[in-house]
Amino acid sequence: MWKRGKFALLVLLIEIAFIIVYGCVVVYDPDADASNPSHSISASLNGSNYRENMLEDYYPLFQDVSVMIFIGFGFLMTFMKKYGYSAVALNMLLACIAVQWGIIMQNVWHTHHGKLHINVFSLINAEFGSATVLISYGALLGKLSPIQLVVMCMIEITIFGCNEHLGVGIYKTADIGGSIFLHTFGAYFGLAVTFVLYRKEFCEHPKEGAVYHSDIFAMIGTIYLWLFWPSFNSALGLGDDRHRAIINTYLSLCSCVLISFATSSLVDGKNRFNMEALLNLFRLEAIIYLLYLSVKYLTPFAMIIGSLAGFISVMGYHFLTPFLAKYCRIHDTCGVNNLHGMPGIYAALVSAIVVSLASEDNYGYSLYEIFGYMSPAANSSKLAEIQSQYTEIEPGKGRTASLQAGYQLIALVTTLAVAIGGGIVTGQSKFIFYFDFFY
Amino acid sequence: MWKRGKFALLVLLIEIAFIIVYGCVVVYDPDADASNPSHSISASLNGSNYRENMLEDYYPLFQDVSVMIFIGFGFLMTFMKKYGYSAVALNMLLACIAVQWGIIMQNVWHTHHGKLHINVFSLINAEFGSATVLISYGALLGKLSPIQLVVMCMIEITIFGCNEHLGVGIYKTADIGGSIFLHTFGAYFGLAVTFVLYRKEFCEHPKEGAVYHSDIFAMIGTIYLWLFWPSFNSALGLGDDRHRAIINTYLSLCSCVLISFATSSLVDGKNRFNMEALLNLFRLEAIIYLLYLSVKYLTPFAMIIGSLAGFISVMGYHFLTPFLAKYCRIHDTCGVNNLHGMPGIYAALVSAIVVSLASEDNYGYSLYEIFGYMSPAANSSKLAEIQSQYTEIEPGKGRTASLQAGYQLIALVTTLAVAIGGGIVTGQSKFIFYFDFFY
Amino acid sequence: MWKRGKFALLVLLIEIAFIIVYGCVVVYDPDADASNPSHSISASLNGSNYRENMLEDYYPLFQDVSVMIFIGFGFLMTFMKKYGYSAVALNMLLACIAVQWGIIMQNVWHTHHGKLHINVFSLINAEFGSATVLISYGALLGKLSPIQLVVMCMIEITIFGCNEHLGVGIYKTADIGGSIFLHTFGAYFGLAVTFVLYRKEFCEHPKEGAVYHSDIFAMIGTIYLWLFWPSFNSALGLGDDRHRAIINTYLSLCSCVLISFATSSLVDGKNRFNMEALLNLFRLEAIIYLLYLSVKYLTPFAMIIGSLAGFISVMGYHFLTPFLAKYCRIHDTCGVNNLHGMPGIYAALVSAIVVSLASEDNYGYSLYEIFGYMSPAANSSKLAEIQSQYTEIEPGKGRTASLQAGYQLIALVTTLAVAIGGGIVTGQSKFIFYFDFFY
Repeated sequence: MWKRGKFALLVLLIEIAFIIVYGCVVVYDPDADASNPSHSISASLNGSNYRENMLEDYYPLFQDVSVMIFIGFGFLMTFMKKYGYSAVALNMLLACIAVQWGIIMQNVWHTHHGKLHINVFSLINAEFGSATVLISYGALLGKLSPIQLVVMCMIEITIFGCNEHLGVGIYKTADIGGSIFLHTFGAYFGLAVTFVLYRKEFCEHPKEGAVYHSDIFAMIGTIYLWLFWPSFNSALGLGDDRHRAIINTYLSLCSCVLISFATSSLVDGKNRFNMEALLNLFRLEAIIYLLYLSVKYLTPFAMIIGSLAGFISVMGYHFLTPFLAKYCRIHDTCGVNNLHGMPGIYAALVSAIVVSLASEDNYGYSLYEIFGYMSPAANSSKLAEIQSQYTEIEPGKGRTASLQAGYQLIALVTTLAVAIGGGIVTGQSKFIFYFDFFY
Repeated sequence: MWKRGKFALLVLLIEIAFIIVYGCVVVYDPDADASNPSHSISASLNGSNYRENMLEDYYPLFQDVSVMIFIGFGFLMTFMKKYGYSAVALNMLLACIAVQWGIIMQNVWHTHHGKLHINVFSLINAEFGSATVLISYGALLGKLSPIQLVVMCMIEITIFGCNEHLGVGIYKTADIGGSIFLHTFGAYFGLAVTFVLYRKEFCEHPKEGAVYHSDIFAMIGTIYLWLFWPSFNSALGLGDDRHRAIINTYLSLCSCVLISFATSSLVDGKNRFNMEALLNLFRLEAIIYLLYLSVKYLTPFAMIIGSLAGFISVMGYHFLTPFLAKYCRIHDTCGVNNLHGMPGIYAALVSAIVVSLASEDNYGYSLYEIFGYMSPAANSSKLAEIQSQYTEIEPGKGRTASLQAGYQLIALVTTLAVAIGGGIVTGQSKFIFYFDFFY
Repeated sequence: MWKRGKFALLVLLIEIAFIIVYGCVVVYDPDADASNPSHSISASLNGSNYRENMLEDYYPLFQDVSVMIFIGFGFLMTFMKKYGYSAVALNMLLACIAVQWGIIMQNVWHTHHGKLHINVFSLINAEFGSATVLISYGALLGKLSPIQLVVMCMIEITIFGCNEHLGVGIYKTADIGGSIFLHTFGAYFGLAVTFVLYRKEFCEHPKEGAVYHSDIFAMIGTIYLWLFWPSFNSALGLGDDRHRAIINTYLSLCSCVLISFATSSLVDGKNRFNMEALLNLFRLEAIIYLLYLSVKYLTPFAMIIGSLAGFISVMGYHFLTPFLAKYCRIHDTCGVNNLHGMPGIYAALVSAIVVSLASEDNYGYSLYEIFGYMSPAANSSKLAEIQSQYTEIEPGKGRTASLQAGYQLIALVTTLAVAIGGGIVTGQSKFIFYFDFFY
């Protein structure tokens, strides 16, 4: 009773804290505020201006991302015989905590007169952030109690929010698909925690086996994640940027499936498709990230990148995961290193190369919207010329493409350090152990 | 053979009747009519005016609601070992009958030269109406034959259509999320029928137990219902109203999950998460309703309301459902009282309070669009001033906020009376028994 | 090892070929091209023109279609006890190959300076094309090895692309719902292959039986296909055309469910709903096609057409499929003849009748947009009058409605001939046997 009471108390206190914080600092964005007539319900007020509500641009993609978070990640983890049910349930609890906390942690850097504005964009961003917790959870499935997972979730979102602000707000890197701040961060945070908590019994846990039906459930999660990846990668963009992100992600996903099947049929010992291998290769969705560029032949590049990602991920599953579990004290229940970790690093490296090739020839002036610090300094004549055509462009620091690529790499290194350090501290922290002890 | 023939004949006759009625009275809305050039396929006809087609505003949310009705409600009821398959199948049959009949029953009050106009909005409304039948079906799962369910469906939609017209058309209440006319109505209609049909055997029916996989199927339904609730609550709104409804519903759902986990872990006897309890708390989606207001601190209120709803629903499941089955002759197969009934009443009471606080300060002039009868009477100078800025506003009756809140409460009481009365009559009606006897 | 190596090699070579072809001939459509400022990310560049990006019109429906292809078709085929897993997996592999190849084969007829333009519309069209392969796969489930399926997929998409160009590009028929070029083509291509490959053992294959849970999985696929059919039928339209297609498809689907239940309960031997029969009638989604017309009473016609389609399909399942398997050497694993073949022919015939009734009275000038060759010849005064109001209309050949209907029938006959001929050649081809022999 005491243990259950403690879980209930912790969750209750967290929700009360959220309510107080929201009551103090959160207000509606003007786009959602009825007292602001310019975004009103009325179609005829000042012309048909309800059309301008940003909701129209983002809501369908927001719901796609929601399906990925709650159905996709939830059912992805049902492949284990005994954890199926609690995987889906805890996935939902963690996502709900992470989203509420993430809205605060991600927006606290952009206050308006001391208030945080909330809109559909904040909700998408918060679901993106919650993905880091769910990725980490994949490495930890079956190892932590619910109460420990809740504590870890709060810590991880806090660290994630700071690291993302460092990368996006201060370094001004572009990582719209989240390969650095979501996938790499979430995977290595979780792997660092599992490293600290390592016990030998993990490796031969009998609950790990899959049964036929649990595998099919897992495929529901897998396919939904795969399917809505174009929405995930493009949700934060608009117009032609979003269009390109969708085309490239989609073709990249398709080519990745082909190469994964090919690789898997080679490395797998049996003569016919092996279920676990197939399931695994379907989980590859996570390797796809945003390729936001417009070089002339990007589409085939996207296909090459997707193909290589499929290869890396299948090889990692077959050779690296058992090796890490045996020799490196890293037991990775769902193989997040192959699904999010290595592909995330790979995507970040590729994106640094692609960024180093970015130029006004490829992008036109939208270059300066994507990479804010590549825009010319204030008061320069070049800036005036750009702004005469493209009013949103703000003064930057005149970064070169190579320098911008360098910052992308710095963000990757920082993120790895923060994720691994944060994970080790969290895994050993009094918080986790304290609750473990009493639970 | 005779029994099956009777079912086939009944369904066939219903479909033929639908076809005749549609042929006589249904025409396309101008937005769907090719002979009306102002909504044409052509982008360039009178400027890019195909953009104005209302379809663009409603279709993505319509499909979200469709997923809730056919996947969500269908799979929600698969948790019972033996009813899984027929639950999904009959759910679909009932929804298809209810939708076709609902389009007539909901639009018959608004004829245009003796014709009913049909558009995407009618389809959304008809799916909303079909939810009442599916909610009632939740209380009756396993108790009625298919033929009885079909008859009940036709009767319930007829009564629902009249009650909704009474509340929305005559009382002019606002209930866009449907807490009164959908959830409360559907739940108490179904509970009244189950009260009339009560037999002792219901309580220890062996088919009721869940098995592991049927539980996971039920979670597919549950999560989809939970996930698309923001679409359900906002589908009938536009612009900033829709935006607020989405934000509030989403945060309310998240906080509801936390409190449901906390409550469930306390009241549940075992030391770890119990599957049925978890499943139940995931079914809580139904408690969320539209909060359409724009008071400064609404977001935390939405979270508080969601939290309390989670608490009420879990407590009801653990204590009230067994009590009702034992002492009150009310056997509630899926616990619709906890999922739709009590939360519906609770939501209606909260909304009455919130309505009583509505004012022009919070809403601007959109107040008079949401609550039509609060708008000033025709020919008043106030009305002229409003219409100069907000041309859609129509003359009302100058209701005060308190009076409007009073009407909300009257609508709740009327709905309860109509639902319970209608359910008892339907349960005892010759129709139901007649078919039961022969089937 | 050699066999697996061969599969891996074939898939790898296909992907490499795709990458080379894409690198040589595919470029972004202007709507996705960053160097084209008129579709830019910027809202304020020349006014809020990002709104004009065609992505906004098509993306939500594209994702609905994606769910149908990967979840719908995939899970539809899980009803067989032993093939569930590989059905979903191979469905995904085939769709990914078909989509990448289809983008080339469908756009090669419309080059711009020797390049193919790729946009969200191409992706939708390619998913439509991939449906033909998945339909054929339904007839072949369990009979071909993965390597044979991959070869068949490449051949089928090639033939499909040519036949579609013949029908749409040369005959100028309208078949937006794809009843002729997708459903009829895919079904009879697959049936021709299964005819060639017929072996007696197919008919009593023990893996064919369903188990309880595999049936529920199949219903996930079925309901998703059913649910998003309005999106499938309307994805290529816009404005009021799309609106009508959605309303008619939706009502047609609803009435089809009623009649299917009625028919099934009659022809089925047992006293209660039979699972397989129910499952079958839920698979009826495939019978619905686009009804693009606007005659005054079309809605009831749509319901009548849907009802008859339900009747045809259930009767076919109960009587025709066993007959074909026994006497005609056609073993149709999933019954695609009932789900896509006969309903496709039926829909094509109905649409020819409906087309013969098309006139300016029903459609206004949008008639000439839907049926391009019915528009008056160049330089006629009638054309000038039309173009003054409706600038997109291009000169046609002044076809009468009856002539247009005749071309619809010719397209049907050609498609049947091409599909059956192509299927027989493919089934007997050295390619299929060669790989079979070594595999």
